[in-house]
Amino acid sequence: MAEIRRDIITDNYVIIATKRGKRPHDYTREKGIRKKRDCPFCPGNEQETPPEVTALRDTPPDSPGWTVRVVPNKFAAVNQEDEMHSSKQGFYTCLAARGNAEVVIESPDHNISLGLQPLEQITDLLGIIKERYNALSEDSNVKYIQIFKNHGQIAGASLEHPHWQIISLPIVPSSLQVEYQGAEKNFFIYQECVYCMIIKQEERVKKRIIAINEKFLAFAPFASRFPFETWIIPFSHQNQFGELAVQDIQYLASIIKQISKVMEVDFNIPYNLVLHTAIPGSNPSYYHWHLEILPRLTTTAGFELGTGIYINPTTPEMAAELIVERSNNG
Amino acid sequence: MAEIRRDIITDNYVIIATKRGKRPHDYTREKGIRKKRDCPFCPGNEQETPPEVTALRDTPPDSPGWTVRVVPNKFAAVNQEDEMHSSKQGFYTCLAARGNAEVVIESPDHNISLGLQPLEQITDLLGIIKERYNALSEDSNVKYIQIFKNHGQIAGASLEHPHWQIISLPIVPSSLQVEYQGAEKNFFIYQECVYCMIIKQEERVKKRIIAINEKFLAFAPFASRFPFETWIIPFSHQNQFGELAVQDIQYLASIIKQISKVMEVDFNIPYNLVLHTAIPGSNPSYYHWHLEILPRLTTTAGFELGTGIYINPTTPEMAAELIVERSNNG
Repeated sequence: MAEIRRDIITDNYVIIATKRGKRPHDYTREKGIRKKRDCPFCPGNEQETPPEVTALRDTPPDSPGWTVRVVPNKFAAVNQEDEMHSSKQGFYTCLAARGNAEVVIESPDHNISLGLQPLEQITDLLGIIKERYNALSEDSNVKYIQIFKNHGQIAGASLEHPHWQIISLPIVPSSLQVEYQGAEKNFFIYQECVYCMIIKQEERVKKRIIAINEKFLAFAPFASRFPFETWIIPFSHQNQFGELAVQDIQYLASIIKQISKVMEVDFNIPYNLVLHTAIPGSNPSYYHWHLEILPRLTTTAGFELGTGIYINPTTPEMAAELIVERSNNG
Repeated sequence: MAEIRRDIITDNYVIIATKRGKRPHDYTREKGIRKKRDCPFCPGNEQETPPEVTALRDTPPDSPGWTVRVVPNKFAAVNQEDEMHSSKQGFYTCLAARGNAEVVIESPDHNISLGLQPLEQITDLLGIIKERYNALSEDSNVKYIQIFKNHGQIAGASLEHPHWQIISLPIVPSSLQVEYQGAEKNFFIYQECVYCMIIKQEERVKKRIIAINEKFLAFAPFASRFPFETWIIPFSHQNQFGELAVQDIQYLASIIKQISKVMEVDFNIPYNLVLHTAIPGSNPSYYHWHLEILPRLTTTAGFELGTGIYINPTTPEMAAELIVERSNNG
């Protein structure tokens, strides 16, 4: 169905769909976002998705009456049925893209964006996401789990109805490997988690702080790649997202609500929200899970693709100031 | 004016514009591409650009009558006037974004895209680009030079008039460092340039070859990140773009013309074209310069930004077949 190929020079992976190759005009035809009229995520249309994985509801599965619903992704880049096998093509290697791809529907309401949801709804949503993360972690073939949300068509949302995605992978992505190595290198130098050090430094200099509550800090990272880039990190040192305590979920929900409302309503900008976590089942003292909110105001062009260097026309210091200002006015 | 900041964990660089921070609405206002009516790159409008760096012409500088014209980028991310200095902010480091940003205007004609230019025009264009590459290489503060072209608004072109860009940098981008290390690792294993090995393997298996001439090979790489991704590489082992022999430029022009015509005219897709080369002035036997043409049919969303893994719905084998088919019909 799909295979993971490795670049022999950079060791970067790509997922190549092999079921039915797309020709150039297949891409242009599917432009646009599916609107409410025929939304498969709206209540009453439960038969439009594959049978649900789980849901918060008192009603029978795959019927209306749910508040959060998790379904397999109908157009998945990875496939649970694929066997684990790798093959050689000359000196190239590839691996079957075995994994789970799930969609978490934020709420029954097609039109309410994340930042405008009641706090309890976001808490329930994150509770379900954590439950799915832990369940998928149990599969010994799963080497990494990517949790993310795309808001707006420019950020890659192909369905308007607000949702998150969870994709489990049989490999550790190389960009995560780079982070783990970088964090380990810093741990070796400072004998301390570099993310814990960043938290302390940001609290001291106060120039890039966006929001604080009892359990979480939101800040604009010093080397922000995107204008208004925002990281959300737990104050307590936790390697893995799965360590998030049940009683702390509401604090995470609260800080996500605060930032996403500014992005969606006040700034009206598309964004991606991505989780970064240690490898499921591992326990490296040098890593510290966090969420990154990546607004998509700039275009990734030849310079960025050639060098990997992003050009950011808004300083993180100014970004923090503007988000705080909007946040206080709302 | 602008500074280069380094991410303390990944060692990735970003360029942050510090002159005048952009607010969210500053981004939305500048959407859209400048059309012919007020094009600063058209003949007669030479005063709209900063004074030219060089041009092919028999007429006085900054007047009409040129065939290829190089001007400083009016909206540069790097600045030649900045002094070289680095500074510490806590445990973060940053560096003044000192460098040159130049625009190479392909031809006086606003409406002729690269693939439809006469072969001689493309040969002249590449000759000038190589000349600028070598001139910028002489500056000992220059650590890397990124040459690229954005075709189409989705690929980041903000002016319609076809042009290339050259940006010199005071650092070696980390994505290039990853390539150099990967190439060196392979050299250590095989005692041979990995790119030379790829050329041989692609010629043997014949499944991903797109075009061949006396001096250059174009092929779809095994781990293509983008649908219809195409690499152009010299058959002879050359570390650096600056080594391109004068008599070989026409062969490079010919293969670029062939591929870009298919992208622009037959497929009508936006793309980025980026040069990858060894560090100017260096001579590493393990590296081999090449051009990458990266069509932009897919959207980079949360999964790609979180994992660094691109999802490509067209196999490189099918991509090669379709490009060859169009190329032969044209």
